[in-house]
Amino acid sequence: MFVLVNLKAYPCDPVAVAEAAAAVATDTDARIAVAPQAAHLSAVAETGVETWAQHVSPVEYGSATGSTLAEAVADAGAQGTLINHSEKRLKLADIDASVRAAERAGLETIVCANNPAQVGAAAALGPDSVAVEPPELIGTGTPVSKADPDIVTGAVEAAAAVDESVSVLCGAGISTGEDVVASQKLGAEGVLLASGVAKADDPRAALKDLVSGL
Amino acid sequence: MFVLVNLKAYPCDPVAVAEAAAAVATDTDARIAVAPQAAHLSAVAETGVETWAQHVSPVEYGSATGSTLAEAVADAGAQGTLINHSEKRLKLADIDASVRAAERAGLETIVCANNPAQVGAAAALGPDSVAVEPPELIGTGTPVSKADPDIVTGAVEAAAAVDESVSVLCGAGISTGEDVVASQKLGAEGVLLASGVAKADDPRAALKDLVSGL
Amino acid sequence: MFVLVNLKAYPCDPVAVAEAAAAVATDTDARIAVAPQAAHLSAVAETGVETWAQHVSPVEYGSATGSTLAEAVADAGAQGTLINHSEKRLKLADIDASVRAAERAGLETIVCANNPAQVGAAAALGPDSVAVEPPELIGTGTPVSKADPDIVTGAVEAAAAVDESVSVLCGAGISTGEDVVASQKLGAEGVLLASGVAKADDPRAALKDLVSGL
Amino acid sequence: MFVLVNLKAYPCDPVAVAEAAAAVATDTDARIAVAPQAAHLSAVAETGVETWAQHVSPVEYGSATGSTLAEAVADAGAQGTLINHSEKRLKLADIDASVRAAERAGLETIVCANNPAQVGAAAALGPDSVAVEPPELIGTGTPVSKADPDIVTGAVEAAAAVDESVSVLCGAGISTGEDVVASQKLGAEGVLLASGVAKADDPRAALKDLVSGL
Repeated sequence: MFVLVNLKAYPCDPVAVAEAAAAVATDTDARIAVAPQAAHLSAVAETGVETWAQHVSPVEYGSATGSTLAEAVADAGAQGTLINHSEKRLKLADIDASVRAAERAGLETIVCANNPAQVGAAAALGPDSVAVEPPELIGTGTPVSKADPDIVTGAVEAAAAVDESVSVLCGAGISTGEDVVASQKLGAEGVLLASGVAKADDPRAALKDLVSGL
Repeated sequence: MFVLVNLKAYPCDPVAVAEAAAAVATDTDARIAVAPQAAHLSAVAETGVETWAQHVSPVEYGSATGSTLAEAVADAGAQGTLINHSEKRLKLADIDASVRAAERAGLETIVCANNPAQVGAAAALGPDSVAVEPPELIGTGTPVSKADPDIVTGAVEAAAAVDESVSVLCGAGISTGEDVVASQKLGAEGVLLASGVAKADDPRAALKDLVSGL
Repeated sequence: MFVLVNLKAYPCDPVAVAEAAAAVATDTDARIAVAPQAAHLSAVAETGVETWAQHVSPVEYGSATGSTLAEAVADAGAQGTLINHSEKRLKLADIDASVRAAERAGLETIVCANNPAQVGAAAALGPDSVAVEPPELIGTGTPVSKADPDIVTGAVEAAAAVDESVSVLCGAGISTGEDVVASQKLGAEGVLLASGVAKADDPRAALKDLVSGL
Repeated sequence: MFVLVNLKAYPCDPVAVAEAAAAVATDTDARIAVAPQAAHLSAVAETGVETWAQHVSPVEYGSATGSTLAEAVADAGAQGTLINHSEKRLKLADIDASVRAAERAGLETIVCANNPAQVGAAAALGPDSVAVEPPELIGTGTPVSKADPDIVTGAVEAAAAVDESVSVLCGAGISTGEDVVASQKLGAEGVLLASGVAKADDPRAALKDLVSGL
């Protein structure tokens, strides 16, 4: 199971969370990554934790002021990137171009989607993984594995029907080790997390709990 | 073969083109539809031609000023709608919602895409049809069936791999009956046209030629 | 005072509201206009009521599938158009281009904005009018003239500081004749209305009440 | 005169350009800043050069995956930010919110615009500066001060008419010290540059020439 901690635009200390994640990853052999703001990528990468971008733009080298160039985030230490998060939804053609941009820069890709139909669509674009996150559950603390387990199994089926090599992660409302195990049992190969770790008083303890059942 | 004439924002007389299309459809038994600006839908529908919208918004009845409500275009006489045309690209989640909106209003749907990967993605969202239109060929007069026949066969394969019930149309650069026949031989069940008819001196003659090989 | 009834994407009968508005305008000499979905413009205009578009796209004649061409809405009977409604916010450069497009097509323009600073910005683009509608009050039934009268007077001052020829309307939460009079006293030369009329059991009675204090 | 070097998404070495800019600024007392990709902000700031962001998102701390949070770019070393560059155009309400976000984070602001009318609109939102860059001249090597000096003087007048405290920069096509002096004579208090420095074989020599006439 891959545990990806999305720091969004939260007022947390990205380096402190990264150090906690690096420590728990070392202690437990779990695969844990942290996705900070682009401006914090290099500081997070310096902690040694697996570092991801929250987004890359569908652009190449050139005149693209204000873009998030895949090569720039890779240069700053990112190993992968989210694409089309529900808070940064992209046009279909731009998801395609962002996946191509990330590949070009050597970044692993997770394309997010709201429901099984969109997961199938995302899988057709050839990313490494897709993630299903029902928007209505994001930030609620109610895990998708409990609120709507059919969405997770539906997403796993939809992705497999299009491309068996694409793995499925699930997100939205996950905050405990129990939720992670439940996601795994439904066929997910990873989870997306945010507030459960980023807003925790003790991110290290929160992460330890999250991977405790693996 | 379905021939859909997209009037875009061209300075043509939509009613004159619609009357020409209605006449040729009656004379030849070809299926021909006309997609005008939303403001011209009712005038076009009154000619008796099959009428399509160029776009519907991913919204339901409610507070959506400036949207193109599926129910409103159906009420004005549209029987179907394009979605995600390369000149009106939508977010993935919004293509999904626009397809759902169109279904709800009883509209047939064609989701446009640039290449076979995106055609597969569009097919996963369950529209009636998908259309492949390489943006670089739109308006060139060089038909995709000649410039890049692999894109058409690739699109047919990509759609079939995801959902066999989704038919494939092709567009970009089609202007003659020969192009339409070539598209059909590559597996397309219809064509999208625009300037070839809308900007023709004699739209009726242009349409007659287009369906002459069917 | 100009009373503009925005039908948004409401499930109302646009022709019935238009007929009610036409009747009240004739009876009372008030200036009342109705802004329906683009697909309903011609049906609304046929009632004889002053007809407005909810939006025009920042485009000219050409390849702009799915756009709302200013010339097409004028052709369907619109005499004016809203631009940048809070439910259809545009980029600054596109507001500029939409105002130019509307002028080209002979449409009167109202550019919407959220607060006095944005009203000043909108006025700098040279529309006929600007409208201030605090997004948090839209649809609440609490009129901006009561909830935050300073926003209306601030908008009047901001517009005048930039261009004295630009008149100011106000919207959000207006549903009674008392609200209209209060808006007028604060310096507004018109009001934007939506649910108060479009969702009324008796739109004609609602409109009569609205203009009763003028 | 303020010289702001926008590195866009160019394949240049941001640190090398930053070091060149820092050296020329020290040697000449000119005010020179460098605006790299967000992911390169901290590396650029470490050179000691004045560092700017290319964009900040109209968001606050919170759930805003993939945004460019003003506080994060300030934390990485930015002292100011461009907003609404022609390659990253924003909605009017979002320019307003991005200016507020930048102020909150202590960042100086330059809002870009295409023409004098839009410069007036931008000035009404209260940024520190506005910049006029006719999109058709960007990257051409033909400076706006030569191609269309009236746009610069028109921008200076439009800004002053709205808010005398807002200074005006000009951009597009500037590559020599002569262009900078010409801009200054037209009333600009700074220039935006990009390819002239970022793509120069010797950025230090290019910058020296640019500030040589000041």
